[in-house]
Amino acid sequence: MMRIAHWLAGILLVLATATASAAESRDGLILTQAGVERIRAELGNLPLLDATLEQVRQEVDAEIAFGIDTPIPRDFSGGYTHQRHKANFFALQKSGALFKILEQEKYAIYVRDMLFQYEAMYADLPLHPQTRSYARGKLFWQCLNDANWLVYAAQAYDLIYDWLSAEEREQLETNLFRPFADHLSVDSPQFFNRVHNHSTWGAAAVGMIGLVMQDQELIDRALYGLEDDGLDTSAVDNDGGFIKTEGQEAGFFANLNEPFSPDGYYTEGPYYQRYAMYPFLIFAQALNNARPDLGVLDYKDGVLLKAVDVLLNLADADGEFYAINDGQKGMSIQSYELVTAVDIAYRYGGEDSRLLSIAQQQGRVQLDDTGYAVAAASRDGLALPFEKRSANYSDGADGDEGGLALLRYGDEELSALFKYSAQGLSHGHYDKLSLALFEHSDEVLQDYGLARFVNIEHKGGGNYLPENTSWAKQSIAHNTLVIDQASHFAGSYEIGSQHHSQLNFYDASNPAVQVVSARENNAYPGTELLRTIAVIKDAALAKPFVLDLFKASSATTHQFDLPFHYFGQVLDTNFDYEAQQPLARLGDANGYQHLYLEAVGAPSAANAKFSWMSNNKFYTLTSVVEATDALLLARLGANDPQFNLRRDPAYIIRRPAAEQALFASIIEPHGSYDRVTESALDSKSHIASLSVVTQEDAYTAVAFELTTGERKLFIVANQQPAKAAAHALRIDGADYRWTGPFLYTDR
Amino acid sequence: MMRIAHWLAGILLVLATATASAAESRDGLILTQAGVERIRAELGNLPLLDATLEQVRQEVDAEIAFGIDTPIPRDFSGGYTHQRHKANFFALQKSGALFKILEQEKYAIYVRDMLFQYEAMYADLPLHPQTRSYARGKLFWQCLNDANWLVYAAQAYDLIYDWLSAEEREQLETNLFRPFADHLSVDSPQFFNRVHNHSTWGAAAVGMIGLVMQDQELIDRALYGLEDDGLDTSAVDNDGGFIKTEGQEAGFFANLNEPFSPDGYYTEGPYYQRYAMYPFLIFAQALNNARPDLGVLDYKDGVLLKAVDVLLNLADADGEFYAINDGQKGMSIQSYELVTAVDIAYRYGGEDSRLLSIAQQQGRVQLDDTGYAVAAASRDGLALPFEKRSANYSDGADGDEGGLALLRYGDEELSALFKYSAQGLSHGHYDKLSLALFEHSDEVLQDYGLARFVNIEHKGGGNYLPENTSWAKQSIAHNTLVIDQASHFAGSYEIGSQHHSQLNFYDASNPAVQVVSARENNAYPGTELLRTIAVIKDAALAKPFVLDLFKASSATTHQFDLPFHYFGQVLDTNFDYEAQQPLARLGDANGYQHLYLEAVGAPSAANAKFSWMSNNKFYTLTSVVEATDALLLARLGANDPQFNLRRDPAYIIRRPAAEQALFASIIEPHGSYDRVTESALDSKSHIASLSVVTQEDAYTAVAFELTTGERKLFIVANQQPAKAAAHALRIDGADYRWTGPFLYTDR
Repeated sequence: MMRIAHWLAGILLVLATATASAAESRDGLILTQAGVERIRAELGNLPLLDATLEQVRQEVDAEIAFGIDTPIPRDFSGGYTHQRHKANFFALQKSGALFKILEQEKYAIYVRDMLFQYEAMYADLPLHPQTRSYARGKLFWQCLNDANWLVYAAQAYDLIYDWLSAEEREQLETNLFRPFADHLSVDSPQFFNRVHNHSTWGAAAVGMIGLVMQDQELIDRALYGLEDDGLDTSAVDNDGGFIKTEGQEAGFFANLNEPFSPDGYYTEGPYYQRYAMYPFLIFAQALNNARPDLGVLDYKDGVLLKAVDVLLNLADADGEFYAINDGQKGMSIQSYELVTAVDIAYRYGGEDSRLLSIAQQQGRVQLDDTGYAVAAASRDGLALPFEKRSANYSDGADGDEGGLALLRYGDEELSALFKYSAQGLSHGHYDKLSLALFEHSDEVLQDYGLARFVNIEHKGGGNYLPENTSWAKQSIAHNTLVIDQASHFAGSYEIGSQHHSQLNFYDASNPAVQVVSARENNAYPGTELLRTIAVIKDAALAKPFVLDLFKASSATTHQFDLPFHYFGQVLDTNFDYEAQQPLARLGDANGYQHLYLEAVGAPSAANAKFSWMSNNKFYTLTSVVEATDALLLARLGANDPQFNLRRDPAYIIRRPAAEQALFASIIEPHGSYDRVTESALDSKSHIASLSVVTQEDAYTAVAFELTTGERKLFIVANQQPAKAAAHALRIDGADYRWTGPFLYTDR
Repeated sequence: MMRIAHWLAGILLVLATATASAAESRDGLILTQAGVERIRAELGNLPLLDATLEQVRQEVDAEIAFGIDTPIPRDFSGGYTHQRHKANFFALQKSGALFKILEQEKYAIYVRDMLFQYEAMYADLPLHPQTRSYARGKLFWQCLNDANWLVYAAQAYDLIYDWLSAEEREQLETNLFRPFADHLSVDSPQFFNRVHNHSTWGAAAVGMIGLVMQDQELIDRALYGLEDDGLDTSAVDNDGGFIKTEGQEAGFFANLNEPFSPDGYYTEGPYYQRYAMYPFLIFAQALNNARPDLGVLDYKDGVLLKAVDVLLNLADADGEFYAINDGQKGMSIQSYELVTAVDIAYRYGGEDSRLLSIAQQQGRVQLDDTGYAVAAASRDGLALPFEKRSANYSDGADGDEGGLALLRYGDEELSALFKYSAQGLSHGHYDKLSLALFEHSDEVLQDYGLARFVNIEHKGGGNYLPENTSWAKQSIAHNTLVIDQASHFAGSYEIGSQHHSQLNFYDASNPAVQVVSARENNAYPGTELLRTIAVIKDAALAKPFVLDLFKASSATTHQFDLPFHYFGQVLDTNFDYEAQQPLARLGDANGYQHLYLEAVGAPSAANAKFSWMSNNKFYTLTSVVEATDALLLARLGANDPQFNLRRDPAYIIRRPAAEQALFASIIEPHGSYDRVTESALDSKSHIASLSVVTQEDAYTAVAFELTTGERKLFIVANQQPAKAAAHALRIDGADYRWTGPFLYTDR
């Protein structure tokens, strides 16, 4: 109570009430006294919370039985000492929550004893012996993990705060928490004083312990950063990201300001947003309790809670996050950070009942006031489905640095993800105007994701592998256009960070014809790129398809490569190709050095057709090609001395020399194969032909014919995309008039 | 009734009863009059049968709505005319059953009209225009599919037999069924008169229609084959299998006699057993009704019903059949043939309640007497779990041609499949003493299966691809020893068919140490091969592992390659290797021409350790190696001009020149990875060292040490495998005495 009062009112008020019920009435950071009492009163009648409590009790009891071990730090991410200290901080926080709710002293004793074991070792602890990090921690090889530790340990300390004696608190704060917070901040400004998910963890760590310790200096440091950090604006971190740019602010608010767009999109992408959401939200929850005057959850029009909704929408039909920028595939809404996010968003974000169905999928809640709210509402049958939807999210602090569009048809029958964003900080990839495509949760056209085996010690200590830079970040690793075998912005983070793509238009108002179009003029100086992606469900076809128009204009001659990163096995092509032997690499740099050229084909007609089978489904890519185009079948795995890369395939349409290029394609999912009945349903493409009928600055138009003979026309306005703009175009003697940025019609 | 009486008694009895209730009392082949009445009486109270009936009704109604189409034959397996005629015969049989049970005349009309449409076209129908088959059909490109048609059409005819007029029956039999049966038999002896799954279909087709038509000549032809077929014993079929060997019998009984071992193992393997089970069993069921005097289901000690049990046991934890010999992965107990098999085995095989749980997984039953029995017992709660188990199945008509052993630990935690069988007819692979390994349903060490996209027209018409011969059948495509880069029996079917491996011993009596051992002396003339596989669950390790001892002895020097066909990504090795660039093929023939050499390593110690991750689980192979061994990392895909092969990896231990070789390895599953918590559990091998301590003609012994320091010893008796045999062996000064073919002990 003392500490809360410190923020809420003044000394007088404190004096008037402090002695009343000191030990019992003091509110915790995330578990208020009233919240604890509500939970205790309804235990046994809150299925989600009861299940969580039982699970947590079993985990913590097992840790208590294992005994306390705080080994001398030694290992990288996958090794024992790393994993042990990581297990410790989770156990600390959970044991504290059990003590608070169950009032069993053994859980407080466990927290106290472990904290004192850390206290005893911390003063003499040198920097972690592994020297790879740009900001080394003490318990872990990087400050980031030390910050993880403190965010959880601060909560544990808070949960047993009243149970400890004043002397014990003094000893822990003086010898452990204060120097720990200092190491993460004043001693590591390159870690603490920037805008980055690392710094968010740093701010939350320092801020959380500051709140428990009632240390205004630490709190201010967390909220606003270090005033004088002495950082060099040319310094970079391990991922090649700049530590600091001129005039940039730091601290919690700066990290809320900059990476989140007003729509709630986090510029690093969902994998890191997920990672950052925990410190953002747990610190915000604590501030909301302790410093409601700051209005943290309302900050920037409630961006933190909006961001939870965006994150949940940036996942496939199995709840796995799209691998935008550096992202490990498989990470999903089942992660503990999302449990926190969903519970807090429910409690403080207007009790959106759709979140309850996500909580039910997660099967657990936070052991705090927010988890209580979710468990009670879920028990009361309030859950509604969380239907994922088409969306267009702006990027950049002010929402003016490009964005990310998601075109979804039906119940995720087809989801196209189109990236026209900013660079995405140091975890960003060089993939302007790239496309990723999903049929339910199956990847049809993949983004490789990151090249890293997170926490698997055998593979580079569980850290980023060299191939993350040499392959995963490069343009050719994505479904986007690559010119002259060079990556966008020459693969330079410095250049990429200065630019972003620009939306031409986004229109998902008609579920049957959803279109997004964006341009990129800086990826290749002197070349203008414009890509239009349409997800179309035509009544004549059983499945929705994608129409892809990628236009490049330059004053000079270039080689253009448009890769399609499919999965599975080639079924058929309408062109001849020659399998290569031996297999040589496709190029020398910019990711090309990792691709083997498996076969080279040449167009036999105005369209190149490429069919494949993946996950027992059929797909055909029909593309308008020129006679001089080369059709390349490539396979990942060259220059991979440690077998760090998957052997995934790619199909690349290469136009060897052109000033202007228009790549028009239809990506067509069709049919399925049943391995039990051995029946192949709808295994052939329904597109008889595709042709470009208008290619002007103002308009691009393509016509296609189905195998049934039906003829279709799609026109896109490249320059006047306003919803109300009227257009007219004459094609093959017929006049077309329409309003809005595109027209899809029978012909 | 007339027709049954024909078999049961004599003319007198017939005369006495035939006129009593002709139309109503006539028993059908698979749906007896009493059975129909039982079903009708309990409709709505038989969940499995009710669900099936509803499903079938929907299917047939959709076909009736689609209309009858009997197109002029034109296509291979994946094409329209093939698929249409195939859909037709299923619809015929189902519509007939619906008519019988529901008594709705539209179903009889549909059958009649379609049969007459076939009748109208059949007389003038030439051989199918596709000429690839060694035995061309008329409706389909191969007689096999015509036989499929007749097996179903005969049932449909039987089900509406009484409803048709005598004139209609006469017309159908004269113009359609009799010539159809003749084409499959007297006109195609190379198809009909052999021992092969094709001929089983042929016999069932001719026999089923013979039973309906009461044509004793056709029935005898089906049961006993053609007396004079004029076949040349040097003729081969499309798979390279011999049509006929000297003195071989033919017909249904011969096909029961030869391919089934007394244990019920079918020599072609489970994929083709599944395919053959339908004609075997449906014809047997019909014979059991019409000719109980033949005792078909008791034949060869009830081998047909035993075979169902074997087939169900030869599947992984998901019910998918092991890909022994030619087998398409994914085929499972969910196939319609298995519905038939399970229902008939239940009804006539002593009502084994374990089969009911399989039927419940299948979710449907046959619409006949057997399906009624299963549905009623299932409804009555009699189902018991079908627990799959370790087993040793003999191969060969008399059970003396090698066999197939299955060592399983726990609830399919680890299943090792060891093949020491005969050739397996024309679908057999050259993989003597090969191993396949499964962790639950995950393939740890794979058998490639077949190289074919069954019924997917793009890929070679859906038929076997050239790579099935050049890769899938070759020894190097399997986890077995390859000498001098040549396949077993020089890849010759003629040679392979003359030999089989020999069991040394099989002992699965102790679940914690299950061992099988077999030798092969003919695969490479002059070289004796002996492989011993042990599945061991040691209390010191969390997961069971495989100990693999492969011994080769020759008087001359050879190169030995032992491949391990793993899945997933390399994590770590304890040896250095050099990645190759460009990628060249590993050899020129015998499957080697399809492998790229990705890297070459050399041992750095007495053990080579190779770790990989697959399906988020960890595996380590620890092998005793010699300094001159080469450790090859290979990748499938060379010489694959149509991309017919998967790009699967292999790890090969090569001993370049030796007369005697012992490959001793531990294949160790350990731990798992969680992509949501990003935690790697137990990611490292627990085997500190492995060594060969005894290498004599009589005994092979290996010792190994765990990372905990515990030391283990395994001794196998190579020559005196009797259960009661007493053994003594001195190793490193210690005396070991034991009884039985092996010893596993602490050291």
